[in-house]
Amino acid sequence: MLPDRVSDQKKRTCSIRFEPSGLKAQVPKGTVLLEAARKLGVYLSSICGGDGYCGKCKVHINSGQFQMKPTTLLTPEEIREDVVLACQTKILSDMTVTVPKSHTLRTDQILTDVDASRFSGLGRDAGGKGFAFDPLVRKIYIEMTPPTVEDHTADHERLTVAIRNMLNLGSGVLQMGFRILQELPRLLQKSDYKVTATLGFRGCVTEVVQVESGDRSNINYAVAVDLGTTTVVAHLVDLTTGNTVDTEATYNSQINFGEDYIRRIIYAEQNDAFDEMQSHLVDDVNDLIVTLAERNKINLQDITAVVCAGNTAMTHFLLNLDSRRIRREPYVASASSVPPIRAAEAGIQINKRGLLYCLPSVAAYVGGDIVAGVLAVCLDMKEKVALFVDIGTNGEVVLGNKDWMMCASSSAGPAFEGSGVKHGMRAASGAIEKLLIDDEGNIVCDTIGDAAAIGICGSGLLDTLAELFLHGIIDRTGRFQAEGDPRLLEGEEGMEFTLVAEKGAQKRIVITQADIDNLIRSKAGVFAAIKSLMETTQTKTEDLDAVYLAGGFGNFMNVERAVTIGILPDVAVEKIHFVGNTSLAGAKAVLLSRQGRAVAEQIASAMTYVDLMSHSDYMEEFVRANFLPHTDLSLFPSQ
Amino acid sequence: MLPDRVSDQKKRTCSIRFEPSGLKAQVPKGTVLLEAARKLGVYLSSICGGDGYCGKCKVHINSGQFQMKPTTLLTPEEIREDVVLACQTKILSDMTVTVPKSHTLRTDQILTDVDASRFSGLGRDAGGKGFAFDPLVRKIYIEMTPPTVEDHTADHERLTVAIRNMLNLGSGVLQMGFRILQELPRLLQKSDYKVTATLGFRGCVTEVVQVESGDRSNINYAVAVDLGTTTVVAHLVDLTTGNTVDTEATYNSQINFGEDYIRRIIYAEQNDAFDEMQSHLVDDVNDLIVTLAERNKINLQDITAVVCAGNTAMTHFLLNLDSRRIRREPYVASASSVPPIRAAEAGIQINKRGLLYCLPSVAAYVGGDIVAGVLAVCLDMKEKVALFVDIGTNGEVVLGNKDWMMCASSSAGPAFEGSGVKHGMRAASGAIEKLLIDDEGNIVCDTIGDAAAIGICGSGLLDTLAELFLHGIIDRTGRFQAEGDPRLLEGEEGMEFTLVAEKGAQKRIVITQADIDNLIRSKAGVFAAIKSLMETTQTKTEDLDAVYLAGGFGNFMNVERAVTIGILPDVAVEKIHFVGNTSLAGAKAVLLSRQGRAVAEQIASAMTYVDLMSHSDYMEEFVRANFLPHTDLSLFPSQ
Repeated sequence: MLPDRVSDQKKRTCSIRFEPSGLKAQVPKGTVLLEAARKLGVYLSSICGGDGYCGKCKVHINSGQFQMKPTTLLTPEEIREDVVLACQTKILSDMTVTVPKSHTLRTDQILTDVDASRFSGLGRDAGGKGFAFDPLVRKIYIEMTPPTVEDHTADHERLTVAIRNMLNLGSGVLQMGFRILQELPRLLQKSDYKVTATLGFRGCVTEVVQVESGDRSNINYAVAVDLGTTTVVAHLVDLTTGNTVDTEATYNSQINFGEDYIRRIIYAEQNDAFDEMQSHLVDDVNDLIVTLAERNKINLQDITAVVCAGNTAMTHFLLNLDSRRIRREPYVASASSVPPIRAAEAGIQINKRGLLYCLPSVAAYVGGDIVAGVLAVCLDMKEKVALFVDIGTNGEVVLGNKDWMMCASSSAGPAFEGSGVKHGMRAASGAIEKLLIDDEGNIVCDTIGDAAAIGICGSGLLDTLAELFLHGIIDRTGRFQAEGDPRLLEGEEGMEFTLVAEKGAQKRIVITQADIDNLIRSKAGVFAAIKSLMETTQTKTEDLDAVYLAGGFGNFMNVERAVTIGILPDVAVEKIHFVGNTSLAGAKAVLLSRQGRAVAEQIASAMTYVDLMSHSDYMEEFVRANFLPHTDLSLFPSQ
Repeated sequence: MLPDRVSDQKKRTCSIRFEPSGLKAQVPKGTVLLEAARKLGVYLSSICGGDGYCGKCKVHINSGQFQMKPTTLLTPEEIREDVVLACQTKILSDMTVTVPKSHTLRTDQILTDVDASRFSGLGRDAGGKGFAFDPLVRKIYIEMTPPTVEDHTADHERLTVAIRNMLNLGSGVLQMGFRILQELPRLLQKSDYKVTATLGFRGCVTEVVQVESGDRSNINYAVAVDLGTTTVVAHLVDLTTGNTVDTEATYNSQINFGEDYIRRIIYAEQNDAFDEMQSHLVDDVNDLIVTLAERNKINLQDITAVVCAGNTAMTHFLLNLDSRRIRREPYVASASSVPPIRAAEAGIQINKRGLLYCLPSVAAYVGGDIVAGVLAVCLDMKEKVALFVDIGTNGEVVLGNKDWMMCASSSAGPAFEGSGVKHGMRAASGAIEKLLIDDEGNIVCDTIGDAAAIGICGSGLLDTLAELFLHGIIDRTGRFQAEGDPRLLEGEEGMEFTLVAEKGAQKRIVITQADIDNLIRSKAGVFAAIKSLMETTQTKTEDLDAVYLAGGFGNFMNVERAVTIGILPDVAVEKIHFVGNTSLAGAKAVLLSRQGRAVAEQIASAMTYVDLMSHSDYMEEFVRANFLPHTDLSLFPSQ
């Protein structure tokens, strides 16, 4: 045998092993480390999608030879310690790599929001009466009289007449798949004409989805899904009662291809990987469904519907609709509203004829998740004007009432999701989620899971910005003002302020001048979107009857501080409502009530989309909002 | 090598060769000759389906050893000449067989009735205005404005709005298959938003069947099919003009499994061969379609619809619906009316998303062919009462007007199709189709194709019965009265009358006492059905404004003689109308007009089916009709 070194030089494939997962594979020599991780399903944070500019995909090489492109995103110390950017590093020999804890996706940190029924729209009526419980798919038990010589009505007509009568269908359209029709006679004879029909309601059309022998009308489940860019959350719902049985969440596997969806579209386009992109998302949904079904001892065939709410890109990925023009002028979706399809057509593994419905979108950048939010908070029923804000990678904003609704999507950027922020991270274990500066100037933090702090997530970043401003450590423009404070140091990328440095912290957590600038730009983007819609509609702050905050960000957000930094208009605190995962709540409302679906379609078509990029005042509003809380302090009298 | 004889005894398979086709195969020793013929697709007439009692499957063994069960259906002369019943004969060695010409199926003898538009219902209005030309599938060319930043409507919605506007759909349902939706964006971009949409009209639902690039609205074809028990006739129709382009016909390949459909159901049930039965029929239809398409240089993808009219059993076979209960009490169909399905679902090879529609049936024994007939002759629009009679294997009868319609199916038996008649045969080359006894008592015949007479087909049998009666050769009960006439001989099965014995005739053609009894029973069945419906509805002969005769039988029928023998009521000759292939005419009307389809559905549900077997007077009427023309001569004053 040749010695290892020589072997390494000659051989064409290398073994790669990731710690602490222990996942390993053989890859061709020269494979980029991030690619190898993707292939193995090892999650590495990567906001830029592998272009080498976000600096998030840092890993530690334990052993092995590699070649890395030069980068300014690593400190000399990191380089000495063999920390590399996985996306810029080629594997040249057998290798073991350690993935830092900061990359860890902990699904137990995803807000599954079991209590989403609070906002499910089921209590949305002015008079306190909600949508009628009338799910997308229903089962009815039917006892028919078997045919006789006197009553020789054919089987197909015997059943359809019975269904029409029970549902009072009148002249409504009743459809039945041909395979069901073919199997019907044997089934009816076997069951002595006592069957359970599963009916799917596809708009004006009622479809016989399934016919089962005997009475199975009390066994009917569905899944409502919040199809997030980062997380996918599923609720298992009993369609006979409307109750939520169980919940489960996972990270969106597409994260490996970019943390925002534009990156993912670019990746898919460059690598002809739209099918792959769909597979990842569909697999995530299927994994959730299987987990929920197994845990609750439910047969997958008894899950007859899935309703998903996601942004336009996620919906396109799930349905494998062409999403390329979402990122290109004139920013066109392939479909805004897709009627219920057979879930199997998208690869969703429930009942083979079960239905899949995705909430309709308004435009390329205002999707079904926002329609779900509006539905859930009943903004479309408000007498007075209300504001709905969903802050995530983008900041979507809806302003309106029962008579009109306008919406926009700000290019907020993912700063509040941790991107472009030195120690920013998602809401995972060890992330600072709350931060306070006490009267003595000391910084007090709460971390997720009470773990040692390893970074700051969105709500922590918002707190940080507000607290630094309130305590004069930064001024209205975001410049550091804390000369002499020992926590303010000159770092490699300019000034930085130490937030955590205690013993026990795994590392020193800082916020840099660049971070603060990024965060202010993000909040300015959201506020400018709000302000542009308010200006367009001549809505004044005092006209706002309610402000609804939704999204993963919003769940941890300190309402008052959102006004402090000027991300929300200066309304009374009691007018601001945390509404949790409204995407899921809306999906559930649509699942449980046909009226809900009709209203969702109405909302989607009633909303007027304002393209801020071509909106004359948006850039001006954006520039004016690049102050804490704003250039025009008269907009924030309470501050 | 062993000598042949020894080889024959030891070997397990035998070669079988049929002349004059030359078709041959290896079959296991002991295989029944009829089975071997079926497998090779060699057509042998076989009314009883292989049970050994119809005596139709006679063939001549040229060479080879065989074993035949004893039968009374062969003459000693035939037995001496090695004529056998194929269904009763086992192959014991290599064998060659000659199939007599009488078995030959000549498709050029099938009445394709190009002029079916005469009765297509397109001129059916009282005011002379027909159904609007509005085919089941339409193509429309749509030029859309491509999206802009100002008009970012999604592709799916852009197209559906355009279609809705062009069709004035209002609140009507527009459906689009998910695969089409998925492919839409690329297609729209490629075609610069200029496309041709193929629209299928499925009742209240309009479906986008296909979207093509550019203007292809002038290329759209369909096929109308008369799905007969014996023959299958197809018309290729240009859906842009409504014109019939070409016609083609073939024999129903299921004939090998029984000449009537009850036999075929039994065969399929005993041999678990429903799939096989469907394949045969679907292959026949596909063969016709391919022939028509090739001959007219049309791409199969440009054929977007098929409309079939057939009896309930044929429709069930085509769609592979459970047909077992058609022959068992309580005689239930699996489906009376199946909305248009995708033709591919039944295996019909036209456009992959093209539609297949079968005309609705009324009951197990009154099918879509009869509904088509009523539609074609406009019986449902008559102010006065009219009668529609379709004489084939069964005799279906419809009586009614615009206010009511009653129908029944008589167990006429297939005597007029040649079954149970010694020299009976179908309407093929060499069949006597017209017969006259001149003033000198000589018999004058016309044969199909002017060939030497080899048998008698239905119209010839009717003429024979009438002429023998009119010339006193048989009496009112059908007994021979011609003592002393040299043509009346004692045969092996009783008395028989020689019709043809001249030199040049291949054989002596006779009609036996048993044949005459069978024919009278058949005509009695049809007349009793007519009479029962007339009695039930208190309709008198003079109330009948029109009598429509349809079916393969009817095409050659001598109207006056139909009254002579008492198969039709005694109405004035001018009230009796030959209406040709109304099954095809009705199918075409439904294909070319949505209104036609709606009317067909109305007709099917408006018709009241009378089960003659449980009808108190039917048996009595049947007995009374077993005379020429009838027991009650007052019913036939003109005779």
